[in-house]
Amino acid sequence: MALKELKENNKEQIEDTVKDIKIAYIGGGSQGWAKRLMSDLALESKISGTVALYDINFKAALDNEKVGNLLSKHPDVKGKWHYQAVQTIQEALQGADFVIISILPGSFQAMGSDVHQPEKYGIYQSVGDTAGPGGLMRACRTIPIYADIANHIKALAPNAWVINYTNPMSLCTRTLYEIFPEIKAFGCCHEVFHTQELLAHMVTDLLEIEVKSRKEIKINVLGINHFTWINRASYKNIDLMPLYQTFVDKYYEEGYEIKKGAWRESVFESCNRVKFDLFKRYGLIAAAGDRHLAEFMPPWYLKDPETVKAWKFRLTPVDFRIQDQQEKINKNQKLLSGEEQLEVRPSGEEGVEMILALLGMGDLVTNVNLPNQGQIAGLPLGSVVETNALIRKDSVLPVMAGQLPLDIHNMVQRHVYNQESVLQAALNKDKQLAFNAFINEPLVANISRYKAEKLFNEMIENTKDYLPGWDI
Amino acid sequence: MALKELKENNKEQIEDTVKDIKIAYIGGGSQGWAKRLMSDLALESKISGTVALYDINFKAALDNEKVGNLLSKHPDVKGKWHYQAVQTIQEALQGADFVIISILPGSFQAMGSDVHQPEKYGIYQSVGDTAGPGGLMRACRTIPIYADIANHIKALAPNAWVINYTNPMSLCTRTLYEIFPEIKAFGCCHEVFHTQELLAHMVTDLLEIEVKSRKEIKINVLGINHFTWINRASYKNIDLMPLYQTFVDKYYEEGYEIKKGAWRESVFESCNRVKFDLFKRYGLIAAAGDRHLAEFMPPWYLKDPETVKAWKFRLTPVDFRIQDQQEKINKNQKLLSGEEQLEVRPSGEEGVEMILALLGMGDLVTNVNLPNQGQIAGLPLGSVVETNALIRKDSVLPVMAGQLPLDIHNMVQRHVYNQESVLQAALNKDKQLAFNAFINEPLVANISRYKAEKLFNEMIENTKDYLPGWDI
Amino acid sequence: MALKELKENNKEQIEDTVKDIKIAYIGGGSQGWAKRLMSDLALESKISGTVALYDINFKAALDNEKVGNLLSKHPDVKGKWHYQAVQTIQEALQGADFVIISILPGSFQAMGSDVHQPEKYGIYQSVGDTAGPGGLMRACRTIPIYADIANHIKALAPNAWVINYTNPMSLCTRTLYEIFPEIKAFGCCHEVFHTQELLAHMVTDLLEIEVKSRKEIKINVLGINHFTWINRASYKNIDLMPLYQTFVDKYYEEGYEIKKGAWRESVFESCNRVKFDLFKRYGLIAAAGDRHLAEFMPPWYLKDPETVKAWKFRLTPVDFRIQDQQEKINKNQKLLSGEEQLEVRPSGEEGVEMILALLGMGDLVTNVNLPNQGQIAGLPLGSVVETNALIRKDSVLPVMAGQLPLDIHNMVQRHVYNQESVLQAALNKDKQLAFNAFINEPLVANISRYKAEKLFNEMIENTKDYLPGWDI
Amino acid sequence: MALKELKENNKEQIEDTVKDIKIAYIGGGSQGWAKRLMSDLALESKISGTVALYDINFKAALDNEKVGNLLSKHPDVKGKWHYQAVQTIQEALQGADFVIISILPGSFQAMGSDVHQPEKYGIYQSVGDTAGPGGLMRACRTIPIYADIANHIKALAPNAWVINYTNPMSLCTRTLYEIFPEIKAFGCCHEVFHTQELLAHMVTDLLEIEVKSRKEIKINVLGINHFTWINRASYKNIDLMPLYQTFVDKYYEEGYEIKKGAWRESVFESCNRVKFDLFKRYGLIAAAGDRHLAEFMPPWYLKDPETVKAWKFRLTPVDFRIQDQQEKINKNQKLLSGEEQLEVRPSGEEGVEMILALLGMGDLVTNVNLPNQGQIAGLPLGSVVETNALIRKDSVLPVMAGQLPLDIHNMVQRHVYNQESVLQAALNKDKQLAFNAFINEPLVANISRYKAEKLFNEMIENTKDYLPGWDI
Ligand SMILES: [Mg+2]
Ligand SMILES: [Mg+2]
Ligand SMILES: [Mg+2]
Ligand SMILES: [Mg+2]
Repeated sequence: MALKELKENNKEQIEDTVKDIKIAYIGGGSQGWAKRLMSDLALESKISGTVALYDINFKAALDNEKVGNLLSKHPDVKGKWHYQAVQTIQEALQGADFVIISILPGSFQAMGSDVHQPEKYGIYQSVGDTAGPGGLMRACRTIPIYADIANHIKALAPNAWVINYTNPMSLCTRTLYEIFPEIKAFGCCHEVFHTQELLAHMVTDLLEIEVKSRKEIKINVLGINHFTWINRASYKNIDLMPLYQTFVDKYYEEGYEIKKGAWRESVFESCNRVKFDLFKRYGLIAAAGDRHLAEFMPPWYLKDPETVKAWKFRLTPVDFRIQDQQEKINKNQKLLSGEEQLEVRPSGEEGVEMILALLGMGDLVTNVNLPNQGQIAGLPLGSVVETNALIRKDSVLPVMAGQLPLDIHNMVQRHVYNQESVLQAALNKDKQLAFNAFINEPLVANISRYKAEKLFNEMIENTKDYLPGWDI
Repeated sequence: MALKELKENNKEQIEDTVKDIKIAYIGGGSQGWAKRLMSDLALESKISGTVALYDINFKAALDNEKVGNLLSKHPDVKGKWHYQAVQTIQEALQGADFVIISILPGSFQAMGSDVHQPEKYGIYQSVGDTAGPGGLMRACRTIPIYADIANHIKALAPNAWVINYTNPMSLCTRTLYEIFPEIKAFGCCHEVFHTQELLAHMVTDLLEIEVKSRKEIKINVLGINHFTWINRASYKNIDLMPLYQTFVDKYYEEGYEIKKGAWRESVFESCNRVKFDLFKRYGLIAAAGDRHLAEFMPPWYLKDPETVKAWKFRLTPVDFRIQDQQEKINKNQKLLSGEEQLEVRPSGEEGVEMILALLGMGDLVTNVNLPNQGQIAGLPLGSVVETNALIRKDSVLPVMAGQLPLDIHNMVQRHVYNQESVLQAALNKDKQLAFNAFINEPLVANISRYKAEKLFNEMIENTKDYLPGWDI
Repeated sequence: MALKELKENNKEQIEDTVKDIKIAYIGGGSQGWAKRLMSDLALESKISGTVALYDINFKAALDNEKVGNLLSKHPDVKGKWHYQAVQTIQEALQGADFVIISILPGSFQAMGSDVHQPEKYGIYQSVGDTAGPGGLMRACRTIPIYADIANHIKALAPNAWVINYTNPMSLCTRTLYEIFPEIKAFGCCHEVFHTQELLAHMVTDLLEIEVKSRKEIKINVLGINHFTWINRASYKNIDLMPLYQTFVDKYYEEGYEIKKGAWRESVFESCNRVKFDLFKRYGLIAAAGDRHLAEFMPPWYLKDPETVKAWKFRLTPVDFRIQDQQEKINKNQKLLSGEEQLEVRPSGEEGVEMILALLGMGDLVTNVNLPNQGQIAGLPLGSVVETNALIRKDSVLPVMAGQLPLDIHNMVQRHVYNQESVLQAALNKDKQLAFNAFINEPLVANISRYKAEKLFNEMIENTKDYLPGWDI
Repeated sequence: MALKELKENNKEQIEDTVKDIKIAYIGGGSQGWAKRLMSDLALESKISGTVALYDINFKAALDNEKVGNLLSKHPDVKGKWHYQAVQTIQEALQGADFVIISILPGSFQAMGSDVHQPEKYGIYQSVGDTAGPGGLMRACRTIPIYADIANHIKALAPNAWVINYTNPMSLCTRTLYEIFPEIKAFGCCHEVFHTQELLAHMVTDLLEIEVKSRKEIKINVLGINHFTWINRASYKNIDLMPLYQTFVDKYYEEGYEIKKGAWRESVFESCNRVKFDLFKRYGLIAAAGDRHLAEFMPPWYLKDPETVKAWKFRLTPVDFRIQDQQEKINKNQKLLSGEEQLEVRPSGEEGVEMILALLGMGDLVTNVNLPNQGQIAGLPLGSVVETNALIRKDSVLPVMAGQLPLDIHNMVQRHVYNQESVLQAALNKDKQLAFNAFINEPLVANISRYKAEKLFNEMIENTKDYLPGWDI
């Protein structure tokens, strides 16, 4: 490189800004996640560029384009981005520096089968998108989609950083690496953040110390997405592990909520009683919402709706999701018509912070989902695990998280190998292997194998449109 | 070494015999295993020496001494051994070249709790000595005994080869290595031999070829004791894996017995229907008796006595064991009084062949239980696994067995980690960890956790005499 | 499979014979190795079929065809094979059950550069085909040839067993697996056999016991081809390791030869003084000829021709190889004209025994070269190592060999990583990486790096016809 | 814990200070390192407590006590510490929260043998404290001292964080973990910092951008201490790897110095020509001073004093060290007499920052020496490697650094295994193993083995007072 050219190219750095970034947004038509990104981008002045919006629902992408560009024009907005809906994934990926994926695999109807078909056999799921019979079925239809996306990224944007938000998180990320091992991808989820918030409130509750931000709660995270564990937590020089023991003792029976009564209002809320119970039994802090955690365990917390209620968390009926989606669409109409403006406030997600870190604008240590290179001892290399990582200019390096205790390790690795089985089953359209994983899910293992077979076949049948090539 | 001395020392080799061997036999008071060894030693002319008999029941050891020495005096007997009962384990181990361990950990009463207490909660076990609630409890009382034996071996016979016959096989062997990592120990079990016999009969049944010996059936074994799998089997140039598919198709419904009707006569027999079912579902040949295999699975085969009957195998009530023991004692009286003579015939065990191989008298390739050094890919190093090994002069080297398919691997490793938990629980008297392993047993996971807790506490209470130091 | 068909197919097994085998022989035009195989096949009555002979010198293949078929017609010959020269490697491989590869990579002229160019810089090599500057150059021209062979095998005979005899052994075998990871290949070398013979003679020398066959000397082998080590050796119940200490003490100065004076007659012979010296310094038995061992070490034994003489082994000038080849060709003329007949006697190689074992006709435990799956602890997985393996019907399974002592391990792994570098350099035509490996060879590290660079470039230049695509 | 007590205990946190810390300083009598710590502590107001000073030279410790306490009394000093010389290591360690070790193992006379005895055989060393014949000898006398320190820490301060500054860094740290595997120790060295400074100057030199601090240069470090490599470097959004190529091209011949001409003034300085040469050959940025790097390579840069000069770096004669030490002592007299005051300025070391991070006062990512848990792929687990780590409240977690290129990996692992050999040799007083490591040092491998033996024996003899128990 000629020196002159070097100097020209890097001038911008003196100003600490990066321009002309291209972000490809895959999915997002379902409104929630795309809006969050727009809001976070609007708040950040250091970076600017284009966001290409691709969704299988082109109309939805066009709406997002409009909302995004309206926002950018607003004088108070610091981050100026150009939003552009595109008709093909190729157009979106071409030249992208970052790819964000947030899709709905299949339909609400398929999700209805995932969540509610098992109820006919006495299997209740609080979410149904990660573990359990529903999570498994969802994975079977998502994996081929992700294999396809990975091939496109390999062809068109092999050097882009890829951030996944879709569930099942581990298997989506795992598929990207299976198909394109050199991909620079990782998965993000906010469940751990909420646990940090809980710990921040615990510090205030027990010590009467105000904590400025959940980020001041330092944790060591290890496990798999939605079944993640904290074996070390601190606030400044205070070790929070013994404090959490006190906290659990205090609130075990009634539970603890940051916002009192929220769990009765929202299906996403809980009183953390499942989390407290897991601590009593296993000694670590489970770092996901109760609704996720419960699905990785035997039906201790999900035996039936009464049990769920007693543990003070909620099932998430797909009807609720449909209605929620409709509300978002209505809201969107108002944004499009200019009747309302997109409210700009931090989403709580870290996508934009991560992009800044990847552009060299400050180190970030946070939890991400990545193939295991040894950051969790004893889990198979290559399986996607969740730990802290150090994010810097063009690199995401896992921080060594150590080893889980034997009993938790055993529960986690059962899911890890079930996920590996599902990956192979989905890629090879292997019904037998898929069923062997299905019946090995803790939520399924409690019914007879004849019922399990029946349920499996029904769920396959219900969603067969999304399982091309399977022998159904 | 002076050359002259070298020559003197090694003269014997020209004759292919080894004299003055000392075998320490720990346990064996329960009659069965010690008699088998006596019989096999009597049939082998190449080796001779002393067998020191140690049992916590000294009277039983004395009886064995008498029977053994009577046998050696008999003119037809080729292997001449001197049997001597000793009062302490130290006397037995001092100067031993080989140590054979075959004990009953605890009492028949304790075994009664292992097997029958869970029945009150609808958990049926066909053996109750390896996996399931019974196997776990038995392990908890056996591990401290084996820790003690390991310490004695370390002090008195650190170079001796140690052969274990006691169940739970994996955990007994694992404990020896945990306490004395340099120990030269391995565990032996005949379950795989019986599967070879089944395959030999299959060859005859399907191909009308007579197979001389089960040893002509070459197999690759991998897994853990009593939950072992064969992924490759051959007879001469015939690949037996596709043949087994035909065999399973032929006999799936009615089952197959080597000796027709035997399963109705003996609790140890079965019609191999569980084995056939596992093949249909998982694609490998399970290499243990159905009664063992069933205990590692969810209660598919052990739901209740009717289910067991439908699968054509048997539960083993402890009453039966007590009665069987009494018959052996009566039989022994006749041997001691000279009314009967010990029948000398090959026991089917390989202990004596192994001793010959370890003395340099011929290579032996057979399945043994050893700490994993990588012979099974993906299982944790140090956990005790069952694979083939090459046995030669003073060495037992595992043969690389490869990797289990994902679905079987997942089931096996769940038991492996449960076993590791039980080891730590037993060594540290950690009730919580023991319970976390207990409730993670596939046979237990199907009852509610409240029932599981109740059952666990009752079983602990029933056998507390054998759990010194536990907080009960 | 229908039962009837099953029975038909397997009838042959009752007779313990296998017919209609196809062996593809790649190379062999240089006469030696092909003749050995013919001789061994002629001595074995259990198997028969066709040997397809492919060599880049078709005339040589035709000559071999004639010699082989003449042999088969001879009434005393037990093994009846049809030999057929073919013009393409595809014809040879199509339908092959076994593939044997034994080629001369490049020409004698290229070999002349390998061996003698370094002498101009004071680097003497006793063989020049495995390690050192010559071994490295030879590897660079062999690897693309083996990559090509691997691709043909993948396409035409993916299920065949592939036996490699070509040097550099480790890198030839490594290349096959790099290109076609599912290949069923292993490499064979007789150097370890000769060490067994030495140990057999040692037993006679020191103990006055006759040993029937080298196979009665049981050894544990570990290392890489031609730099292999024995850490355990026994004859019957006699531990040979302390005996070897006595043997080395006795013969350290004068050396020991099985056939007195042979080393003065033949470049292939030695007095084992290098082997004895390595034992004194490192404590294990080096298990290859001195001429190979010396090339893996710093120039302790190869400083100059006088040093070589003092250690009582020989350099192998390429002139000698050319003359030796001419003699073989002359000899061949007599065979072709009928003036002489191929002498049928065991070659000492194990290829035919291995084929028998792979066909299910008896287990074989012997040393082979295979990718490391953990059979040698601490060496990188995938690198080709030499240890014992258990050969059975359609399987070659490494036996766990354990770990080398730290100091030997360090010397071995330096070569292992140099070999990995050469593999990558040859596949990617990366001169810089090739040179970094070159200068890291212990025989090269002693000259200045400027001289090393000059030498490297000359050797590349001399053999550039065999380095297509390199930037020379 | 009662809530009230919890609140009391943690009140201090609101103020962001930690009081009553005890630091044990082992060594430091040689003046340099202890003064640096005092200075850094004086600059930091957030922490305070006691520093217990232990040195085998009690007088030196008393002097340090006096200097330290004088400093603390000074009104401008922010960090108030009480310094106290103690007569035993036990007193120092009792109750320590942090242990800092910085000793001189042996004497200057012994160091003279390390550095200069090899010169008689044509082996020149620029430092002689890490690799090469001198580094090895130094390790042999340091390891037993560190074994002793580890035992004391285990007994008296098992929960303290231990920071090592003594060379040979890797082996000192390795010994601590070998003796007390649960120790919380790591090693610190500033060589990497200097490379960051070089890169910062490069940015200014090539791009005319001022870099505020070396800490803005983000790097990924991997290797072993003093032979560490950078495979990724950035400043903000600028990738520095291609820039470094330009930099090396520009300055390869003349070299580059931050302070022009410094290398002629100080033995510690260089013109980075070795570093540039290594980049040209191996493609990564070597991250230590040229004087250290040169010792890990064959004698390319250290052939003789002229070669050293041509590469523009310096040998460090021990006479210089003796004189330097005398100057420090003289300087110290002035401090003690009050004639001068200790100058308080940042030392450039990170010890105090690390203590702050370990106390929960801010995350720190920096390079440290720790046992490999997989942070460098392919290097043996347990060997001490240098990579980045995340330092937080009571935890130091390595960041995954990835894998070295094959050629560098090979050079690094040769030293890693040599170090392991030295560790075992020193602990077991095994001269043969020590010599096998010695002759495998790249600087030694170039002389004949007879000379190497002679040299080894002389060096052992020269320092035998520090090798108790060796068979000399
Ligand atoms: Mg999530
Ligand atoms: Mg058994
Ligand atoms: Mg060879
Ligand atoms: Mg340093």
